[in-house]
Formats: sequence, structure tokens, C-alpha cells
Amino acid sequence: MGEKVKIGLLGRGTVGSAFEELLGERADAIAASTGKTPEISGVLNTSSGDFDQILADSDVIVELIGGIEPARESVLAALSQGKAVITANKQLVAQHGEELFAAAREHGAQLRFEAAVAGAIPIVRVISESVGEIEIDRVYGIVNGTTNFILTEMARTGASYEDALADAKELGYAESDPTDDVTGADAAAKMAILARLAFGFSVDLADVACEGIEEIRPDDLAYAKELGLSLKLLGVAERSADGVSVSVFPCFLYPGHPLAPVEGAFNAVTLFAPQINEITLSGPGAGGPETASAVLGDLVSVLSGGSPLPPEASPANMATDRSSAFYLHLEVADQPGVLASVAEVLGRHGISVRSVVQRGLGEDARLVMVMHEVPEKDFAAAVDELGKLDFMRSAPRSIRVIEEEARP
Amino acid sequence: MGEKVKIGLLGRGTVGSAFEELLGERADAIAASTGKTPEISGVLNTSSGDFDQILADSDVIVELIGGIEPARESVLAALSQGKAVITANKQLVAQHGEELFAAAREHGAQLRFEAAVAGAIPIVRVISESVGEIEIDRVYGIVNGTTNFILTEMARTGASYEDALADAKELGYAESDPTDDVTGADAAAKMAILARLAFGFSVDLADVACEGIEEIRPDDLAYAKELGLSLKLLGVAERSADGVSVSVFPCFLYPGHPLAPVEGAFNAVTLFAPQINEITLSGPGAGGPETASAVLGDLVSVLSGGSPLPPEASPANMATDRSSAFYLHLEVADQPGVLASVAEVLGRHGISVRSVVQRGLGEDARLVMVMHEVPEKDFAAAVDELGKLDFMRSAPRSIRVIEEEARP
Repeated sequence: MGEKVKIGLLGRGTVGSAFEELLGERADAIAASTGKTPEISGVLNTSSGDFDQILADSDVIVELIGGIEPARESVLAALSQGKAVITANKQLVAQHGEELFAAAREHGAQLRFEAAVAGAIPIVRVISESVGEIEIDRVYGIVNGTTNFILTEMARTGASYEDALADAKELGYAESDPTDDVTGADAAAKMAILARLAFGFSVDLADVACEGIEEIRPDDLAYAKELGLSLKLLGVAERSADGVSVSVFPCFLYPGHPLAPVEGAFNAVTLFAPQINEITLSGPGAGGPETASAVLGDLVSVLSGGSPLPPEASPANMATDRSSAFYLHLEVADQPGVLASVAEVLGRHGISVRSVVQRGLGEDARLVMVMHEVPEKDFAAAVDELGKLDFMRSAPRSIRVIEEEARP
Repeated sequence: MGEKVKIGLLGRGTVGSAFEELLGERADAIAASTGKTPEISGVLNTSSGDFDQILADSDVIVELIGGIEPARESVLAALSQGKAVITANKQLVAQHGEELFAAAREHGAQLRFEAAVAGAIPIVRVISESVGEIEIDRVYGIVNGTTNFILTEMARTGASYEDALADAKELGYAESDPTDDVTGADAAAKMAILARLAFGFSVDLADVACEGIEEIRPDDLAYAKELGLSLKLLGVAERSADGVSVSVFPCFLYPGHPLAPVEGAFNAVTLFAPQINEITLSGPGAGGPETASAVLGDLVSVLSGGSPLPPEASPANMATDRSSAFYLHLEVADQPGVLASVAEVLGRHGISVRSVVQRGLGEDARLVMVMHEVPEKDFAAAVDELGKLDFMRSAPRSIRVIEEEARP
């Protein structure tokens, strides 16, 4: 079955084990299609294996350790010997991508990282191969399955954030320490990678504005349900005349938005480009087998001669003046003049109200409002001022809203 | 900007013109990413241009004529000279794919046809690149934008098929002769291509079972709406122990099916594989700019050295014994004993009823039933028998039903 290709596997956790199994199952098919037979030549895990030995014995390094070090050093060492590297490490690629791409370029090594973003969905490949042909100006993504599972459960059952998180842990959709997921940090790293590929500028992860889902309450989801809206943790990367912006935040989507139907632990990414309107890819988020299949896809690509590295990139000029529509939830005293005072503050900041509903009585009185699109800094200033009004019973809560996209 | 690559363009209709325009816009970006500058060296259209001269002057032939001849002869002539060919011609690839692949293989020529299926959605590329890594066992597709537009309009407005078709023509979503679209022939060709790529067996277009949407009535959509179902013209390609089956038919989808939210002129394709559960790609169906962007993507792929041709394939062993769930609509006389007689016939053929509703009175009496999954030949035999019962006021109408897919 042709030339043997030796694979050094770094890390044998959930994904590593699934990869080993899948590689065994698919070795014949891979040999048939590439003329090369991959075989594991060494495995590094926490208790055994010697990296230098594995590197010396391997043609391709598959890095599934996660985290920055020693993953970064190992990947750089392999690339510097011209060896192909496949990694599923989103933080490594998001934080040190340019260094890795430069090393790969310098030593003529291949570097693949499909599994770092959105599990089995081949979004890295599709974006990389599309940038020659179309000008992507916006990328929307639901790129964290844990948070989408939690929000779907909250919407479906009315559960609190805490209870839905506990369910997610029990079902294996959340890790015991879910911080990276629920704060949006995981999604931010993935969106930084997608923005880098789509726009051709490097994005500093520190410049990615990031809000998580920890403050979402059942109230918010009840409201969403009533209006037929979906609440998602959305990643948005945009390119405009002002520069690039990348952010992650919870937000309401109107029905008809291509990401509105994405439920449970699924991931999905929508690319917008003037020439094609939009395309959406969706599928299961990162589970062991799904991530392993993405790693194996990268291996097939490496064995087939592979696709080019991302071209060199200068740092993105980050746009700071974003505009959004907002939902605003105000717990107010049940007294005359409240709505007039709120409206006065909003009007003074140039904020136009799309709808307003007064809810509850007495201790439960609330104003639930949806605003038209407004510069985010103006909205923040208005919310700040609203928070100081004496009839407010608690701090104002706001969530972005994305209106329906035009579709044919 | 590096080496010039000469493109001979066959056909300058909607797609051809859009391709010329897009190529002009993106030439610099393509040169930057591939090191090669594409330029049109000649155009063949109905009134001008000489094919032999264009072929002699070109490195790459882009075939956008459509139809079988002279497209087939032109493509074979180019391939036999080792020249790369890009085509958007689904009928050509579906009917003569093996001949074209063989010619390309023999002469070391590249052949690309992303634009033949599902407009801007890179489904050909994703399937081709995935077959090494996963074992696709099922492909579902909404691959005809015209019919999806018509069914969406019928569902939304209650319009008749004829009125929705007239609207589609007026809005440019249907051609003046929509036969290929509404009969399912267009979708059948696309599904045959996807089955060929996913399963690695050649599929004779004559073996693709095909039903169109011409018999769909507002009644059917009203029923769907009531139950929250979507009615789609679905292409299904499946591989099982019995062989391959490819078919196109109108069908009801339960909510939660990945293709249920696909509306209007959009296309979408879902791939199922044990390793990845499912992935779905969706986007606008074939319009001029979307198809042109797929053609340009193929050009970028050709200039970059390209991906391999589909491996040689033997003819598929076609499975004939399919099973489906069904909706059954019977216009019956309003008299006692009707339901009992119908139930007796169904029971005798081993058909299990999931739900039944009796509707209307007198001249309007109807039974609307949904069956559990059953071998299609048993269902057909039962329907045949039901049609002969003396209380039937018109021929039975049935539509397949696909139950919700398991999702995480």
C-alpha cells in the first residue's frame, strides 16, 4: 500500500484516542486515495513517551495536548525540521499563529488546524480556499457547543443558567471547569482565527471584545420565546472601511437569520460576501470523534500535498465604533413618569425605540425595550445614565439584537 | 504579477457574463494568492467565436454553454490536449462524467465542476475532500432553488402551484420553460453527481427515481403548516448493504431536520457519516453571481495545482427496496365504514398508521393519515388497492415523510 508515513501523536486524551481509532479504521481508504499509509510511530502522553525521540521517528506531528506550553515549543521544533504539523489547539493558533505560520513558511513545512475551530465542520478549509475567489466581509459563528447547549436548554425548559450548566456537565457537554466556554474566551480564540483567515490581517486576541453567558436569566429567554427570537452566544468578525472588528457576545436573532435554527451542542458559521450573499456550514461542535475526523481530514490533506499556508499578514487595524440594535431590561419602581424619564434619556443619546412593553406590577415592574441600531458607545452612555435614576430597582441589563438578514 | 494564464470562455450568458466581471474584479487577489494572472483569451457565444481557435489560444477552458452537445465534444477536445476544464454543466457531468474523468485522467488534465451543484455552496469540494477521512452513508439535498422558492411561497401565502410558479417566473427564480426544475430532473442530475462523489460508484441517471412538485396542492401545505412540518423537494442518496439508491421527491420534514429551515431560493446539502453525525452546508442556489463565484473558485483551485480527480468507479449496485414513512390524503364519500375499510387494506399490507384525521363533510370529506416507515412497494400496493374502493372520490395522493433526525 505505497509509502509509509509515520505519525507522532502528542496527547492521548478524548480526541487523541478517537483519532487513533479512526486512523485505524480509515487507513486503507487513505492509502487508496493518497497512495500513502499512515501509521502511529509514537505517542506522548502525561506519563510516558519522549518528545525528541517521537519527533525523530515521525514524518508528521499531530498535536492534541492543548494549552500554550509545551505545545508551542513542540510544534515549533517539528516545523523547524520541516515536518508537517496538525493541531487542534485553538489557543495556540489564535495567540501564536503568526509565529507558527512564519516557521512553517521558513522551513517549507505544512501546518493544518481545521480541528481548532468548529469540530467536524470544514470551515477553515472553506474560508482558506474561498478568499481567492470572493471577498468575505463578515463572519458570524456559533462556535462553542457548550454555551449553545446551555442556552438551548434554558430556552426549552425555562431552567436557570446554573441548572442548565449543571445539566451540560452531567451530559458531557461542559467540562468540570467551564470558564473558557461560558466567558466566551473559547469562542473568541476561534473567531480570531476565522477573522485572520477571512480578512488576511492578524488579530490580537486581546482586541477581541468578549462577553459570556453567565448573566443570562430565564427572563431573557422567556422574552425571546414570546417574540420568536433565539438567544445565541454569537461570534462576529467584520471588515469595514474603518478596519476589522471581532467580538463575542450573547445576542437575540430574529427568525430567518441563518444561525437562528442552530440548537443544542451544534456549531455553525455563516460567511457573507457580496458575490455570494451568504453560505452557512453547520454540524456537531467539538466532540472526540468529530474533532478526530477534522484532524484526519488535515492528515489526508497533508498526505495529498496539501493546500498553501495563510499568506503573510500585517496586524489588523481594529475598528472601535461598532453599532448594534439592543434589547434593554429595566427593573423599575411602579410609579408614574418612569417611562417618560427613560424615554428622555434615550432620546437625548439619539437612541430610537423600536418596541417597549411594560411588565409586572409593584415589586415586579419592568420595562422591556428593543432599540433600533445605534452606535454602541452612545447606548453604553445612555445605559450608564439610566442606571443612576432613582426609580431603578437594579442595574439595567442589555443584550444585542441582530435583525433578520435579507434572503432571497 | 507572474505568469499569465489564458482562459477560453465558452458561453456568455448570465453566468458567463457574471464570471467575466468577477474575474476582472478578483484578478489581483488571484495573482497574489496563486502567483498567476488569469485573462480571457477568447469567448465563444452563439453568434461569434471559433472553438478551435479559442482552444489553441487557451490554457484553461471554462464551459458555460450548458446542454450535452456541443459542450461534451468541446470539453473532451480540451481534455485530450491536457488542458484544464471547468464546467458548470450538471447534465454533462451527471450523464457523461465517467467519460470526462477518464479523458482527464488519460491526458493528465484537470477537471472541475463545483458550479454544477448548489451554486456558491462548495459541496463538491467538501465531499471530495471528505471521502478519505469519513465514510459518508447518506446525502440529503435541497438542490433546486426554483422548486424550493415555489414551495416556500405556497406555504407562506396559500397560493396554488400555478400561481407560485408564475410568481417565480416573474421574479426570475424560474425560467420560461421550468420543466427541468419542477419535474425534479435538475435535482436528479445534481444528486447523481453527489452520490458518485460520496460513494465512489457511478450512478446512471436513468436509475434515479424522480418525482416533481407539479401535483402538490395548497391542501398539502396547509396540513404541513398545521403540524409544523416543512414540504421540500428533497434529493436523497443513500448507501446501504443492498447498494446505492438515489431519488428525488417532495417530502415532509419534521422540525429539527437540518434541512427544514431552508427557505426560498436557497440550497442546502446535509452529509451524514457515522464519525461526524452530520454537517450541513447552505446558501443561495444558482444565480449568475453565485455560480460565477463557484467557477472562479474552481479556477483558483486549478491555478493552485488543484485537487485530484474522483477515483475510477464501477457502476453502483442500485438498491431497489426503499422504505419510507408516508402522508396519505384520501378524498372519500362521507359514509359509515370508510375508515374501517381503509384501515383493513393498510393493515393487510403491513402498514402501521401513526395518525389519522377525518376532515370535512359530504362532498369535502377526506382522510388525512400519516404512516410509519414501510417498504415502499408495500405502500404502493396498498395505495393501488385503496384507489379501487368504491367510496373514493378521486385518486389517493401520498407524499413521503422524513422523521426528525437525532441531534445532540
